[in-house]
Amino acid sequence: MRLAIVGTGLIGCSVALAAREKLGAGATGWDPDPDSLAAAAERGALTPTASLADAVAQAEVVFVAAPVAELGQIVEQVLSLVGPDVLVTDVGSVKRGVVNANRDPRFVGGHPLAGREIGGAAHAQPDLFEGATWYLTPTETTAGVQLERAFRLLTDLGARPRVLSAEVHDQILATVSHLPHVFANLLVTEAGATLAAEGEPLPAIGPSFRDSTRVAGAPSSIWVDIYRANSDAIVERLRRVEADLAKFRAMLEADDSDAIKDWNELAAAEHRRLLVEGLDSEKTTSISVRVPNQSGVLAEIALTLGGAGIDLTDLQLHPAADRATGTIVLWVPQGEQAERAIGLIAELGHSVSEV
Amino acid sequence: MRLAIVGTGLIGCSVALAAREKLGAGATGWDPDPDSLAAAAERGALTPTASLADAVAQAEVVFVAAPVAELGQIVEQVLSLVGPDVLVTDVGSVKRGVVNANRDPRFVGGHPLAGREIGGAAHAQPDLFEGATWYLTPTETTAGVQLERAFRLLTDLGARPRVLSAEVHDQILATVSHLPHVFANLLVTEAGATLAAEGEPLPAIGPSFRDSTRVAGAPSSIWVDIYRANSDAIVERLRRVEADLAKFRAMLEADDSDAIKDWNELAAAEHRRLLVEGLDSEKTTSISVRVPNQSGVLAEIALTLGGAGIDLTDLQLHPAADRATGTIVLWVPQGEQAERAIGLIAELGHSVSEV
Repeated sequence: MRLAIVGTGLIGCSVALAAREKLGAGATGWDPDPDSLAAAAERGALTPTASLADAVAQAEVVFVAAPVAELGQIVEQVLSLVGPDVLVTDVGSVKRGVVNANRDPRFVGGHPLAGREIGGAAHAQPDLFEGATWYLTPTETTAGVQLERAFRLLTDLGARPRVLSAEVHDQILATVSHLPHVFANLLVTEAGATLAAEGEPLPAIGPSFRDSTRVAGAPSSIWVDIYRANSDAIVERLRRVEADLAKFRAMLEADDSDAIKDWNELAAAEHRRLLVEGLDSEKTTSISVRVPNQSGVLAEIALTLGGAGIDLTDLQLHPAADRATGTIVLWVPQGEQAERAIGLIAELGHSVSEV
Repeated sequence: MRLAIVGTGLIGCSVALAAREKLGAGATGWDPDPDSLAAAAERGALTPTASLADAVAQAEVVFVAAPVAELGQIVEQVLSLVGPDVLVTDVGSVKRGVVNANRDPRFVGGHPLAGREIGGAAHAQPDLFEGATWYLTPTETTAGVQLERAFRLLTDLGARPRVLSAEVHDQILATVSHLPHVFANLLVTEAGATLAAEGEPLPAIGPSFRDSTRVAGAPSSIWVDIYRANSDAIVERLRRVEADLAKFRAMLEADDSDAIKDWNELAAAEHRRLLVEGLDSEKTTSISVRVPNQSGVLAEIALTLGGAGIDLTDLQLHPAADRATGTIVLWVPQGEQAERAIGLIAELGHSVSEV
């Protein structure tokens, strides 16, 4: 397989390293910053090219790893340069912009939940995506065969692909990533002010404060774009959080012991549910679905399952000899999730059975 | 040395284990909960007694490790039971209440920054305090000899004592501990709501969300008291944070790229200053001070240095033969801090020199 990497920083370069190590795939690469491109070439990750067009000319799969604000336009440019069978995907942290700007059968939006505190090709590593969730955000325009290829390729790179809509992706990321970054920033700023006022250095306070502020002041070159691209979802949460803080403050001001306790117990219950019990031990089963061979069907099914909280761990597409129909095989957790998956797929009008 | 441990949970029992292992000290213990007392006895940490009075009867040092809301009253009771030479200290997370209620030469408020997510004697360990900051909050009433004993004892238990006033302690803890707990609670509650609305499980998102929420829903039996006991300091910060959140939200709503960048850069600078550069490599020097042998002098000096951000790493008290005067030796970081320390101590009217 021949890959092209557009944007050869930490993520782009790690994709190239992983593809070579795990798939024996070669990659060409291009970056508007010559230093970044040279650094990736120095790691032996890819063959540098003189232009974006040169980089993608021979590629079967193109990864666009550019800053969030430029993704829509660069993906559009790549799509205008490559042939009808090429898979184009990206790695941006916010998905609605790039996905809505590029409704093309060849494009599948993507976002690996992997990174390091220090960017750049020098810190790239082939196992960066090992076990990491890698969101895929297809639309009804996305070709099933491209979604399948993306899913398979990411699995081969060590990641766990997970299909959901760009809208749901951006809501979830606002909560589990963007809001924690805002809080971390507020905490260090507040701590700086308090400690300066009291003339104290930061106490050796064990891991709790460090943990809460580990992501504070993440690189502005990346994060200003992320905050702006997902501002509506973040603003919605900030409004809620401001109200929740004011409510908790009122409990303290009223010294309302019962209310403080209920508030803390609710958090304890959510913490247990999300982080302790949430670690699923997966035994999967496979489900076979007969489908018409047309764009968007696989995406629709995957999005339906994703939207219902069903954990799609693998998928395969088998076109029938007539090319008009095909069979999709889906792997989902045994039991309740498998049963719900079958019900939901049947509701979409497909013939479905557990294999 | 004979210790008494009042409250034989995780911290109390770990103090007993550390004292036995590092000092060969024996301990008696009492807890109003017979199960907790039995568990501590089972760990071989201490000899259980039938009452608080029995526990402290033969003790030279008493550690009160009771819930924050009960500390003031229990310390008072202990002070009424023990002799004039006994050191009484506590381990509460909020200090003004217990300290203001017990202005006694024998009492030094304390607070180790150590703990585990699971409490109880069963999880106690002798190295729990190794390298941990252990705040001491003496007042002008505290006997110098007791502050010195406490400082020495905690150092021997493996901790790093640090002297500051109860007021400053409570402000700092509001920032570096209580506020992060509030944020962690809000984050899991918000995440629970979002993920439930979107039908998604928590993504395998790497450490960032887990880190930010590790302390969410900490035990209500401990934390309701902490929030209430330090509510004024927490409320003050919540007001600031609510305003800061609203300000950041306005930047997003205005799509003000420069303001978002400045806001993030400020956090990045504070993060570097507090957490990266803040790790001091300490070379210490010793300073000798001649002082009148009277209550509160050592505490005043230690508090003055602490309040000026000077890191007091050790101290010794040498009474002169006449018992009317004495010499204090203080260890502080070489260079700028040592110079400031000498200046500040001279300003207090004492004869001071670098040794």
